[in-house]
Amino acid sequence: MTTAHGVVDTPAFMPVGTQATVKSLTPEQIRACGAQIILGNTYHLYLRPGHETIKKMGGLHTFMNWPGPILTDSGGFQVYSLGKLRKITDDGVIFQSHIDGSKHLLTPKKALEIQEALGSDIMMCLDECTPYPATYAETQKSLALTTQWAKLCKEAKTDSHQALFGIVQGGTYLDLRRRAVEEILPLNFDGYALGGVSVGEPKEIMYAIAETATPLLPEDKPRYLMGVGTPDDIVYGVSCGIDMFDCVMPTRSARHGLLFTNSEKIVIKNARFREDDAPIDETCDCYTCRNFSRAYLRHLYIAGEILAMVLNTIHNVHYYMRLLEQIRAALEKDSFTQFQNTFMKKEGGV
Amino acid sequence: MTTAHGVVDTPAFMPVGTQATVKSLTPEQIRACGAQIILGNTYHLYLRPGHETIKKMGGLHTFMNWPGPILTDSGGFQVYSLGKLRKITDDGVIFQSHIDGSKHLLTPKKALEIQEALGSDIMMCLDECTPYPATYAETQKSLALTTQWAKLCKEAKTDSHQALFGIVQGGTYLDLRRRAVEEILPLNFDGYALGGVSVGEPKEIMYAIAETATPLLPEDKPRYLMGVGTPDDIVYGVSCGIDMFDCVMPTRSARHGLLFTNSEKIVIKNARFREDDAPIDETCDCYTCRNFSRAYLRHLYIAGEILAMVLNTIHNVHYYMRLLEQIRAALEKDSFTQFQNTFMKKEGGV
Repeated sequence: MTTAHGVVDTPAFMPVGTQATVKSLTPEQIRACGAQIILGNTYHLYLRPGHETIKKMGGLHTFMNWPGPILTDSGGFQVYSLGKLRKITDDGVIFQSHIDGSKHLLTPKKALEIQEALGSDIMMCLDECTPYPATYAETQKSLALTTQWAKLCKEAKTDSHQALFGIVQGGTYLDLRRRAVEEILPLNFDGYALGGVSVGEPKEIMYAIAETATPLLPEDKPRYLMGVGTPDDIVYGVSCGIDMFDCVMPTRSARHGLLFTNSEKIVIKNARFREDDAPIDETCDCYTCRNFSRAYLRHLYIAGEILAMVLNTIHNVHYYMRLLEQIRAALEKDSFTQFQNTFMKKEGGV
Repeated sequence: MTTAHGVVDTPAFMPVGTQATVKSLTPEQIRACGAQIILGNTYHLYLRPGHETIKKMGGLHTFMNWPGPILTDSGGFQVYSLGKLRKITDDGVIFQSHIDGSKHLLTPKKALEIQEALGSDIMMCLDECTPYPATYAETQKSLALTTQWAKLCKEAKTDSHQALFGIVQGGTYLDLRRRAVEEILPLNFDGYALGGVSVGEPKEIMYAIAETATPLLPEDKPRYLMGVGTPDDIVYGVSCGIDMFDCVMPTRSARHGLLFTNSEKIVIKNARFREDDAPIDETCDCYTCRNFSRAYLRHLYIAGEILAMVLNTIHNVHYYMRLLEQIRAALEKDSFTQFQNTFMKKEGGV
């Protein structure tokens, strides 16, 4: 995938850099983990420090000193997550800031305006994230709004260097997912995302959605499964044809001391690591595993040290990046199915 | 100054690595700031993860992956800071852990045992940090205890690779400071420290102590002003003949968004930096100043991001290290007095 700020190998995983920082990491550390593209959250950056400020400071890349590609979401999902603090109308979403309670209106046009000010490489259309559960009628109505907003986003786009992706909603109803694809494809976006997944629905349903909708999307454009997911979700997503993923899982888990390894998930505060001088994962070559023991990481975590967050995040992001590398290598060698079988067996996944 | 883990240029400043980490920094970042030696806190490491654990993990250097020299304090100062949670007897200090309330006895022998288990390059004698204010009689009594404990520490020392420093107490009474020097010099320590300063006394008194006691200590052994201090304190200390300093000021200030520059101290959350695309200090070549704007650092700080702590700490530690470099260069060129005059004028210091 080629963007204004460089090429991205796909399938790709995007570490989440909510507030213009992948929490706890310097840009060099993010890069050293193998990340090629990161995600920024429009909702957070709009509220603080403000997209106009970021624009004046040279755009998001310059502001956070990340020279590589950035995808920004539309802000819709975060606003949706505000619950009672937001109200959806045909024009957009009225919401209250989680920071100071101030009222704001996010429209399709505004979502594009903010993302253009941020200067991301890939922008997302404002959509309505259909909640789970939702009735068929509710989902139909929600989908109609998403389609209408997609058209308005397409019209609002002015900058030619920034790509714009459309979003496929349709809740848990596979026929509505198909309809969403039919409605959105004629708008000719630069890529397509599956939204409204990973919002509480059973994993089987998410998998069914990915399985159904992905093949309907053009193969020559990136296909992005939003907010997903666990390592086995990613492997499954790739098997459906997904090219892009993002999730707070590696970074958030790291801050909670939950570390991914090739054989198990480790809770680093566990007493069994008290005098364990092995690295988190013997097979991992990340900075953390090359230099620090489980005993040290446990100590840092229990002592509440900031360095615990840093070192754990480096490891988890690196784990995800290595997983994607392995997936790309398997695809290259035409041995992905074999890789998937081995991986799922190991993970005890679906 | 030569230690078991390498040479240290003096005068030297030691960033504080309380819990086996200079808060928020990786060892590479500490080194890149120019630090050659760091300080570890015996009290904290004894309680968590425990000196025996660190010993089993290969000692403090291996545990925290810092290959350079480390000085450990005796634990005395932290215990002293516990206030009502500690009681001083002739044998040592009985104290309650700030973590779990458990009771412990720290004796001169125990202080050495812990520091030998940690494997630091420089160990400190257990002393009684005379409070401020204290009467002459109280200070006399306290000094007698420190001298007695110094003898016991000297006797308890077993490892030949680790240096042991004696500590000069005597409170604010200059004649007791002189007596302290007389009592401690015959014990022939590898270096000498001035303790019981920076405990609330007026700066003029601290300066008078440094001025009086430092010249009485042998020039061919390191002279260390404990827990000091501000940039102008350090410049003043060097003018008295001090070779070593430590202080949480650069690291703690950084975490509170107070940044040192060549011309002023900056409170990074200040609104005037909202759209300031300049680095913290135009004359600084630290990683933070080379890569990030005040506007970005303000944003990170206000957003409560971990990266704010990391980047601010890098800058402040680098500022201190550069100050010491400038001091050493001035001493080398025999122009320290001129440097001091220029510096004090700029700082508006004493």
